[in-house]
Amino acid sequence: MGDNHQNILMKKHLQVTMNKIKHFPILCWKTSKKVGAEDPRRIIHSLKVGLSLTLVSLLYLIQPLFQGIGNNALWAVMTVVVVLEFTAGATLCKGLNRGLGTVLAGSLAFFIEGVANRTGKVFRACFIGAAVFLIGSVATYMRFFPKIKKNYDYGVVIFLLTFNLITVSSYRVDNVLKIAHDRFYTIAIGCGVCLLMSLLIFPNWSGEELHNSTVLKLEGLAKSIEACVNEYFFDTEIDENKESCSGDQIYKGYKAVLDSKSTDETLALQASWEPRHSSHCYRIPWQQYVKLGGVLRHFGYTVVALHGCLQTEIQTPRSVRILFKDPCTRVAREVSKALIELANSIRNRRHCSPEILSDHLHEALQDLNKAIKSQPRLFLGSNKNQSRNMLALAAAEAGQKQKEKKRQSGVSLSSVKTDSSALMEWKTKRASEQSREAERKVLRPQLSKIAITSLEFSEALPFAAFASLLVETVAKLDIVIDEVEELGRIACFKEFKHGDDDDKEEHITVKCEKPKINVTQNQLSSVSGAE
Amino acid sequence: MGDNHQNILMKKHLQVTMNKIKHFPILCWKTSKKVGAEDPRRIIHSLKVGLSLTLVSLLYLIQPLFQGIGNNALWAVMTVVVVLEFTAGATLCKGLNRGLGTVLAGSLAFFIEGVANRTGKVFRACFIGAAVFLIGSVATYMRFFPKIKKNYDYGVVIFLLTFNLITVSSYRVDNVLKIAHDRFYTIAIGCGVCLLMSLLIFPNWSGEELHNSTVLKLEGLAKSIEACVNEYFFDTEIDENKESCSGDQIYKGYKAVLDSKSTDETLALQASWEPRHSSHCYRIPWQQYVKLGGVLRHFGYTVVALHGCLQTEIQTPRSVRILFKDPCTRVAREVSKALIELANSIRNRRHCSPEILSDHLHEALQDLNKAIKSQPRLFLGSNKNQSRNMLALAAAEAGQKQKEKKRQSGVSLSSVKTDSSALMEWKTKRASEQSREAERKVLRPQLSKIAITSLEFSEALPFAAFASLLVETVAKLDIVIDEVEELGRIACFKEFKHGDDDDKEEHITVKCEKPKINVTQNQLSSVSGAE
Repeated sequence: MGDNHQNILMKKHLQVTMNKIKHFPILCWKTSKKVGAEDPRRIIHSLKVGLSLTLVSLLYLIQPLFQGIGNNALWAVMTVVVVLEFTAGATLCKGLNRGLGTVLAGSLAFFIEGVANRTGKVFRACFIGAAVFLIGSVATYMRFFPKIKKNYDYGVVIFLLTFNLITVSSYRVDNVLKIAHDRFYTIAIGCGVCLLMSLLIFPNWSGEELHNSTVLKLEGLAKSIEACVNEYFFDTEIDENKESCSGDQIYKGYKAVLDSKSTDETLALQASWEPRHSSHCYRIPWQQYVKLGGVLRHFGYTVVALHGCLQTEIQTPRSVRILFKDPCTRVAREVSKALIELANSIRNRRHCSPEILSDHLHEALQDLNKAIKSQPRLFLGSNKNQSRNMLALAAAEAGQKQKEKKRQSGVSLSSVKTDSSALMEWKTKRASEQSREAERKVLRPQLSKIAITSLEFSEALPFAAFASLLVETVAKLDIVIDEVEELGRIACFKEFKHGDDDDKEEHITVKCEKPKINVTQNQLSSVSGAE
Repeated sequence: MGDNHQNILMKKHLQVTMNKIKHFPILCWKTSKKVGAEDPRRIIHSLKVGLSLTLVSLLYLIQPLFQGIGNNALWAVMTVVVVLEFTAGATLCKGLNRGLGTVLAGSLAFFIEGVANRTGKVFRACFIGAAVFLIGSVATYMRFFPKIKKNYDYGVVIFLLTFNLITVSSYRVDNVLKIAHDRFYTIAIGCGVCLLMSLLIFPNWSGEELHNSTVLKLEGLAKSIEACVNEYFFDTEIDENKESCSGDQIYKGYKAVLDSKSTDETLALQASWEPRHSSHCYRIPWQQYVKLGGVLRHFGYTVVALHGCLQTEIQTPRSVRILFKDPCTRVAREVSKALIELANSIRNRRHCSPEILSDHLHEALQDLNKAIKSQPRLFLGSNKNQSRNMLALAAAEAGQKQKEKKRQSGVSLSSVKTDSSALMEWKTKRASEQSREAERKVLRPQLSKIAITSLEFSEALPFAAFASLLVETVAKLDIVIDEVEELGRIACFKEFKHGDDDDKEEHITVKCEKPKINVTQNQLSSVSGAE
């Protein structure tokens, strides 16, 4: 019986595996298409790598070239494989690191060889061993220094590699200088091919990447805020589907911002190695982009908190929310407009419109102000349905009676009871059946219920939080504008002209697109000019 | 005159440079000490690398060994430099990638050589060139596949490298098999040394690192929340210094959590390559740690928003806040306690106490409830000082008159005026003198003022937001507990015993320490046993 069961299991397992193998080519093909469609530059980059490898292979394949260089040609191949990266900045960074590391290591190795050569064979071996140990330890330790780790990590690895190879092989080989010489040439050839490919043939600039990602981040935040507020005031009963879709949009909008720290820093670092490919500015302030990224992340945290208001267990009833729909939506729209104007200003490398903080935003804020002021009824609980749940603020003057009525109504009392008993129940269950999965699924809502029921007073609090966070975004918008202006100032953006304003409206409605690669290609001419 | 000026400038520049050079050794020494003090394992790792390099150098330096292997020994050196990483998981990951890449590339290269050998010399060269181009492009393209990028990026690089070296050199050399054979041996020796060093001699486990960082993150959040609430209710007039210090603490607490995404994922990936070094569990669920990290990040966003409440321009007066000090502080303390209990449960690999959500938390929430209910006076504005600024909630019943009085008082009206005129002023200034730095410094407070004055209604809103966010942390605590429990279940944590509870109090007061390295060393025996 057990064997039979096992047989069936094995057959099933086999079938699943077979299915996986059968579908593997299709999966591969689909992934390939997706990866290519996401960013067509990837295909170009792959072809570039293939071409570069073929080029350095010619050192082997063509007779006259091989005679000059010989087996050292393998170093050219190695250099191309390791150094040629997706963006020009990354390639330059690695190439220069490799060059620097090789030269330094070579010098040090020859110095050590010079010292070791004057002694006997055995002592020389010991000396080399000690040097290898010492230099290896020190170089590895240096890789932990923050500055070196950030800029020269790869250089130190190459230094270590080259130093060891030269020092150790010098013990057995006599004409080390010749070897080093040849090797240096071939590495230079490899680096040359890499630089040629990455700088002159369809180059991808880390700087452009950073620039475009900043634009996309601003647009994402704009969309997130608008979607967030729309969902908050959206009537669930109309369409459940649409809501979850907008939830996705909110999440997508701010997620790219939250996770951008390390990418931004890497791109800025690589971009700082790139030759300037813009004619009208002395230097492009990549660090300012990183700083702006930091400010945007902080803006993003507020949006996350705003999104959190949509998902809390304690919700202000929709009938109440609807009263504030108009001003809130308008504030959100204005903030989002301002963000999109900032995005466009960065995209087109021009200063942003002086009307970026329009009267509309100001008016919307005042309307929100008025709306809250004009609804004291809400907080006083005169509405019958809400009487028991709204902030019981009428208590002092008019609400004393009502409060008593509320207490007597039993509803709230019983809910407190449920609450305490739920806690007790939950705790007993938890202690006795701690490890059962199914139970926990039941327990979670109860625990949340504790939070809900014990905070029945606070049905108006979430809206207050929502409004407060919305105002917070306006305050943070201020800082974002400051940073973008600073960026525009350092990067010598064009002056704002009123004609530029026209494409603004268009961009708001346009769907968020991938950064266009022709921007990058346009830069090609200016770079080849600069070379 | 101009020359003189330039001379002076140059001298100054020279002096600064000289000073920098003079202080360079001191700076180096200080950085070295700091880097070592931060994590003494770094020193051990550096010595390990030095030792490994010396070991593989012996292949060259000792005559009998060199005769067996010859110049191919350089591949062992190369392997050690490239593969030996800080943690065992990273080394294993790289070593296995290197091995896999080499073997696959070797097989493919021999296959291609087999095909190419049957043809003429010129056709053979073309064939090899085409193969190099094709394989190079395809392999590079595959590096963009998310799954391959995540797990096998280094393997593909090595595959490409080895494939090219073998294919290309096979064109000139006849006994490629012999070369490949020798090279494989030396690479195996290099990998062997690396594995020995990283697994058996003072190993650092990525898994331990992830485990400890999770504990630290929980503790950091706990400290952040408590510090945040304390600062919110802190009387500024007593001590300005202390406040900014606590601000630092808040920031430090959540910063580590927010930026942890990529580190967590890398560590989990590396940890998944490590042999299990714990005897009582089938497999350690590293992905669950990543998931918990994600939940903690979301918890962190709420803490950031809470921290934001401390920094907004619109502030609830301290005299009002003080009324809610007690319940809020208690809620925060209970949340923080629960987080620390979770941290301790993970640290000691035991389930968390069933009383983790104590009655205290529940009571504190109810007290907060009561406190807000018992202060309707606040929101009604009966206090003379606050009358004009609090949510004008008495409007409907009792406040109508007061509202009129307020309107007539002129104070609020005039503030609205200032507001509008400030906006106008700001905009004119901005349009005309857009690029002057000094101006902007003046402009920012005015812009912020727009937000403040136009939202004078909302002095009570920030507190509502604060309270709401505090409640939100309680709700999210729920999810965190769930994830930790799930982790405990999959990782087979010990049952909770009441004796364990005693060390809890101790840990709360103890300053946050670095993860202890002796934990790692203790694991040594169990691993060597498993090998």
